[in-house]
Amino acid sequence: MKAIHLPLVTHLHHHDLDPNKNRVPVVYAYQDVKTSKKSNRLGEKLSNLLNIQKNDPTRSNLNDIHEDKANTPTMSPKEDISDRWCDIHGVQEWEGLLDPLHPFLRREIVKYGEFAQATYDALDIDSFSEYCGSCMYNSHKLFDKLGLNKSGYRVTKYIYAMSQIDMPQWLERSKLTYTWSKDSNWIGFVAVSDDEESRRIGRRDIVVAWRGTVTPSEWYENMQRKLESIGHMDSKVEHGFLSIYTSKCDSTRYNKSSASQQVMKELKTLVEFYKTKGEQVSLTITGHSLGGALALLNAYESAANFPKLPISVISFAAPRVGNIAFRDELYQMGVKILRVTVKQDLVPRMPGIVLNESLQKFDDLTGTLEWIYTHAGTELKLDVRSSPYLKRGFNFIGIHMLETYLHLVDGFVSSTSTFRSNAKRDVALVNKACDMLVDELRIPTCWYQLAHKGLECNSYGRWVRPKRHPEDIPSPTREQLL
Amino acid sequence: MKAIHLPLVTHLHHHDLDPNKNRVPVVYAYQDVKTSKKSNRLGEKLSNLLNIQKNDPTRSNLNDIHEDKANTPTMSPKEDISDRWCDIHGVQEWEGLLDPLHPFLRREIVKYGEFAQATYDALDIDSFSEYCGSCMYNSHKLFDKLGLNKSGYRVTKYIYAMSQIDMPQWLERSKLTYTWSKDSNWIGFVAVSDDEESRRIGRRDIVVAWRGTVTPSEWYENMQRKLESIGHMDSKVEHGFLSIYTSKCDSTRYNKSSASQQVMKELKTLVEFYKTKGEQVSLTITGHSLGGALALLNAYESAANFPKLPISVISFAAPRVGNIAFRDELYQMGVKILRVTVKQDLVPRMPGIVLNESLQKFDDLTGTLEWIYTHAGTELKLDVRSSPYLKRGFNFIGIHMLETYLHLVDGFVSSTSTFRSNAKRDVALVNKACDMLVDELRIPTCWYQLAHKGLECNSYGRWVRPKRHPEDIPSPTREQLL
Repeated sequence: MKAIHLPLVTHLHHHDLDPNKNRVPVVYAYQDVKTSKKSNRLGEKLSNLLNIQKNDPTRSNLNDIHEDKANTPTMSPKEDISDRWCDIHGVQEWEGLLDPLHPFLRREIVKYGEFAQATYDALDIDSFSEYCGSCMYNSHKLFDKLGLNKSGYRVTKYIYAMSQIDMPQWLERSKLTYTWSKDSNWIGFVAVSDDEESRRIGRRDIVVAWRGTVTPSEWYENMQRKLESIGHMDSKVEHGFLSIYTSKCDSTRYNKSSASQQVMKELKTLVEFYKTKGEQVSLTITGHSLGGALALLNAYESAANFPKLPISVISFAAPRVGNIAFRDELYQMGVKILRVTVKQDLVPRMPGIVLNESLQKFDDLTGTLEWIYTHAGTELKLDVRSSPYLKRGFNFIGIHMLETYLHLVDGFVSSTSTFRSNAKRDVALVNKACDMLVDELRIPTCWYQLAHKGLECNSYGRWVRPKRHPEDIPSPTREQLL
Repeated sequence: MKAIHLPLVTHLHHHDLDPNKNRVPVVYAYQDVKTSKKSNRLGEKLSNLLNIQKNDPTRSNLNDIHEDKANTPTMSPKEDISDRWCDIHGVQEWEGLLDPLHPFLRREIVKYGEFAQATYDALDIDSFSEYCGSCMYNSHKLFDKLGLNKSGYRVTKYIYAMSQIDMPQWLERSKLTYTWSKDSNWIGFVAVSDDEESRRIGRRDIVVAWRGTVTPSEWYENMQRKLESIGHMDSKVEHGFLSIYTSKCDSTRYNKSSASQQVMKELKTLVEFYKTKGEQVSLTITGHSLGGALALLNAYESAANFPKLPISVISFAAPRVGNIAFRDELYQMGVKILRVTVKQDLVPRMPGIVLNESLQKFDDLTGTLEWIYTHAGTELKLDVRSSPYLKRGFNFIGIHMLETYLHLVDGFVSSTSTFRSNAKRDVALVNKACDMLVDELRIPTCWYQLAHKGLECNSYGRWVRPKRHPEDIPSPTREQLL
């Protein structure tokens, strides 16, 4: 296995970081998301291609929807997997575990997916907030606030990425002049398993969860053009993803070091700490959509830095990231990748399927790009039509949502079976930020939001935006300031 | 003054009440309201007509917006008006009190407007709720829940109207098969002043507040066709309004008696009760939009039944209701009408301005209708451009909203003055269900909504719709059942 010396960071020098010129990356999340007209039209054009029929004769009977599940636990039991953890972590490429899907593996996929989901649920997306683009809670409270206090992990570090990169508009940008940061967005976190969970899963597991975007329409068209070298070999990856991962700027508060540098420093600390204690350690990197792409870059860099560490990526709805050489180098370094996709989701087909309607040389480019970018790893392919709880019809945003993915994983038995009848995960979660659930379930659409959108009535009877609790106000760590 | 024997009720027999055939009246309220494409186009066409310029050089300086008002009371003081109540109630047609607007009168207009606003704020508009179209709270808790506990009034009665009338789609209709009522919607309430408030205002004041609709696009086009006789003279009123007011059906739970019958029975009880005690009694009827039209019908019927009772209507954004004979009859019976309008609002111009784009004989009909329907009463005309807090540009829904009206009343000094600098009413209220406030105020749009749209996380971790508290479940009164 080769040694690669943090190759990603060197690419920073390729970028012009003039903040007036460059644009921000990363992440729209929950809003009453409206698919743009353009992507609607696109959706219509593509729905045949994706085999979506409005009236699907194979659709399950809806009667079982009314079954009262309100008083059952929302999760499958956590089994002791300590003697099988290597297989479940993918050492054998999940051979024999995916179809049918092994219950132990299903439970672990959902666990990691919920860490990725936390990066959406805790993001401040209120453009009138001075903390727009930050996490609403400090790292010690995050899991408590999101109901993940029984996850068996604790957050050790938040990661920030530049939001002023030469990219299309992704950032959560406050409309105010004074904000916590004009340059950065919260892009993820590092967490580590506690003693009890470590016993259950047979090793100390370090997790990196990368935040993505749920409105891909802004970026997919810009993500199929520019491959850029990474490392010292022939590996190339999409310029935009790399840019988010590696950009930094001395004049910022949160990105004097890049996301790459922040995460690698934390991983080094944690790996050394637990290795010194003689523990078995693993690294699991997760992310949805754009976050899945960042997970792959992070895995590449981690494998180069920790040659003997078992490293897996569990990605959801991730686009293609690099060329064949990049994929092969990941394989050579032993990175295991489980790529969860939904058949009807367009994002995992990018880049490589030409979605830019303005593109003239349609056929030429389709052919070319299809061969340039390639997926890496093992695919777990889901189908929205398998779930009796989901609406039919083409819903570009809803199909791409991570909660839709987690619902489908929870119900997946095998590629030839119907939805798991004893799936326990709360179906209501699917509609958090979209309109995917059938009416019979009576779940409002886009329901995941604060009372009065965060306004509170004060003692004078005025509706005001409360000040954020001081301990939840983001503040740079020492290394971010130095 | 003539005696008219409940003429409105007799019109019921003109209607075919087959519930499968007829449609529902009354009321869309808070939702993330989207103006239809049609009304958007219409809006563009009409914005010139309405003198709306995007860049208005007379616009006030926005600097004073940043002044911190968070710690001031939200209301002007309530003055003792006991020796002037007749004037403020309109006995002299508000002569000399409107321009400039007398502070005592302004305070009273806002008070009545907030009763009308309560009919929106407490309406269950969740189409997945089995109580959709009902009031969320029982009548004893309504004012407490809405922060009106210091209003000095108590609710004595809820009013219901048929929702299955031969009319365009207005109803709040549940998507469920089992609902509290398939036939009725909550359409308003009767309230009466308590002893302390009665001392302040110089008499026992009975209020009727009628609920309207905030999405007029569905109904305005259908409200300019059909005049129908009312009473025994030449008076005619719009068929649709009368239909809502007078329809009943023996097979329903809440409308065995019509809205008209329900309200008149309650008024009779209250007026007799307080008259017997030797008190001076007044009746004030209020409503917004469609509710303003119902207020006028209710005033007409009340005047016929209580010939000596001082009766005023304070309406907001009300359309024209009837012909000249109807207006004159109201005047003859002594009904005083204060009609609050906003210059840029289209609804007070209906019927009579042809808004139906499909109508071919544009000019002919405009002329005709303009003369058939006429407004009644004294107008207090507001202008959205007077407020430095409101966005410019044509926002069909936002301009029509009752909260926008109440904001403009609160700031109105005179037709030649700028916005009142010491206006205290909470500006944030304007954006409850629209997007009218300038960005500098940092108030989210359409913010008036429950946390998680009413879903709650139960002890099993599931997001469920909580059962409505038994005392808030609507139940028919004895007379509704008999």
